[in-house]
Amino acid sequence: MKFNINKVDLDKHISIAQKAISNKSTIQILEGILFKAENNKLILSSTDLEISIETKVSCEVIEEGAAVIKSNIIGNIIRKMPNDIIQITIEDDNVNIKCQKSIFNISCQSSSDFPSLPEIEEKVSLTIDNDDLLTAIRETKFATSIDETRLALTGLLFELKDNSLKFVGLDGYRMAIKKYDFTSNEEFSCIIPKKGFNELSKILDDTSTDVVFMKGHIAFINGNTKIFTRLIDKPYIDYNKILNNSFNTKVVVNRNDLVNALERAQLLSTGSNASLTKLEFVDGEISINSNSELGKLDEKIYGKQDGENIRIAFNTKYLTDGLKEMDSDEVVLHLTTPLSPMTIYPVDEDDNYLYLVLPVRLSQ
Amino acid sequence: MKFNINKVDLDKHISIAQKAISNKSTIQILEGILFKAENNKLILSSTDLEISIETKVSCEVIEEGAAVIKSNIIGNIIRKMPNDIIQITIEDDNVNIKCQKSIFNISCQSSSDFPSLPEIEEKVSLTIDNDDLLTAIRETKFATSIDETRLALTGLLFELKDNSLKFVGLDGYRMAIKKYDFTSNEEFSCIIPKKGFNELSKILDDTSTDVVFMKGHIAFINGNTKIFTRLIDKPYIDYNKILNNSFNTKVVVNRNDLVNALERAQLLSTGSNASLTKLEFVDGEISINSNSELGKLDEKIYGKQDGENIRIAFNTKYLTDGLKEMDSDEVVLHLTTPLSPMTIYPVDEDDNYLYLVLPVRLSQ
Repeated sequence: MKFNINKVDLDKHISIAQKAISNKSTIQILEGILFKAENNKLILSSTDLEISIETKVSCEVIEEGAAVIKSNIIGNIIRKMPNDIIQITIEDDNVNIKCQKSIFNISCQSSSDFPSLPEIEEKVSLTIDNDDLLTAIRETKFATSIDETRLALTGLLFELKDNSLKFVGLDGYRMAIKKYDFTSNEEFSCIIPKKGFNELSKILDDTSTDVVFMKGHIAFINGNTKIFTRLIDKPYIDYNKILNNSFNTKVVVNRNDLVNALERAQLLSTGSNASLTKLEFVDGEISINSNSELGKLDEKIYGKQDGENIRIAFNTKYLTDGLKEMDSDEVVLHLTTPLSPMTIYPVDEDDNYLYLVLPVRLSQ
Repeated sequence: MKFNINKVDLDKHISIAQKAISNKSTIQILEGILFKAENNKLILSSTDLEISIETKVSCEVIEEGAAVIKSNIIGNIIRKMPNDIIQITIEDDNVNIKCQKSIFNISCQSSSDFPSLPEIEEKVSLTIDNDDLLTAIRETKFATSIDETRLALTGLLFELKDNSLKFVGLDGYRMAIKKYDFTSNEEFSCIIPKKGFNELSKILDDTSTDVVFMKGHIAFINGNTKIFTRLIDKPYIDYNKILNNSFNTKVVVNRNDLVNALERAQLLSTGSNASLTKLEFVDGEISINSNSELGKLDEKIYGKQDGENIRIAFNTKYLTDGLKEMDSDEVVLHLTTPLSPMTIYPVDEDDNYLYLVLPVRLSQ
């Protein structure tokens, strides 16, 4: 096996393949990237058995072949090579890497021990703009659960139904939903695990992605890169039941004013206790109070209020998390009672997003 | 005590004072910054008993006074305040911090429990340009020892003698010396501990610094900020004895070529063993070899050689450390025998710097 490749190309594609390498793997071959040279392409494959990546790049193949090379050592070597053509020759278990006057020799393993990646046989289910996909992941993933005993909730729900594509993250205390209009005859619903959407976010470039639903897997095809992720095979909560369409109080408020006040409130949180923030809405004046053993904060901000006055308390971090991810300058708050969830929407009509957060019961 | 101050000014000066706060202190009052308001100045003082900082900033003092406020909480609060005038009022053990519609109340301690900082009575010994001071620290500090049983070597030697000001760092394996010409009738020599020169590097702005030698301390006065550091009271090695003025081989080489090759060699270092690099100088051709269980590197670079051919080996990291800190495009290597230290100088004549590194004995 022998091929010549531009350093920048190789470096970029190794970085992509490295996203599926787990540094906690106990299976030695999975610390490696499968290099396959054929038809003037270099194909790099990697897997941690949960997510798998295959990425292709053009190169000059002199002799076809395949071998598995340890991900970290080959990655470090290529990164530190001069910016020029790199010649890689693999014979038996030796990899010779030559660039200008530098020659590395390192070892490799046989490609026959490397697990097979899933094959894409099904047709493409949908094509999504990468900006939309990245925004949806960013705006929902923080609301997923970290509790491994509620496995379904640790993932993101990805659902195509009734001409809309929805992303849902929820953990029992808050819920984030991003929705896009999407004309399609197909219907599906699946749960993508945390590692899948995290690594996907790091790989996507600025074009679009084809999505293919497969048995037990979902594949994202972005240019010359395919990312496969195993799905979480558990039932998801019926999140529609949590949604609350009626409200008694509606307040429009500047998002930054609210976020800044909440971030100050969070300064009073101590290691042991979550910070609690009380909000009191009186005719458009919003009093924000927080206190802990460290001290006490009193703030006032102003909004446009319709409906009843109300006093309600939240876990400061939960409330802040969702507000911080929104893009809109102004947000609308819908409140019902001090014990019912508050729903927050961006004011921007094009932005089909909602964040729902449960209150904390006040003692008095 | 009551004063009004611009948020940006207060934030900046709290950050300076925080440099002397240890997060490992067991003395509770030392987690605080002493705030003193007098003569339309706010004076912030902090100490970990090894280094101490006093920094002054103009403000509108409405009522003079002093109190100690926990460094991390006041720092976080001021950082998150709107960019406006902040009004601080201290009554008994309560600090009221008001900015626009935000009001924090936190606790403080009495200033009477705060240790006194050293007083500057001696005259200024020298004034040094901050660029020179920062360069000297950067180019020598990496060569200081991390071995606490050799306390003197964990510090930087700072020496004024024979019309030159020298900074020396050495750990028994390598030595870095930076020298500036300095006309003075004074002579002194002291060892500044690691924390002293590290924090000093972070505080200095782009002007110049007055240095005052005091009993057991050295003070650096930079604008409105004074930094005091305790000195290491131990004898330093007679570093002049290590210097070697004769050599058998002199090689001029591009510094980047050499650093890049050595950084590639370092990729082969494993957790357990330091990476060893062999250099063979033959009529201007420099062969660089390194190997470990991970693989093998062969490089060639070219220089201008005068004198004997020689084969010598070094700890790759030690050799690289000094070369990386130099600014010169080309460097001169002086070699004597495979068992004698190599001395490296920048080619730039104005740059009075040398880096000396001991070789590793080769088995054959």
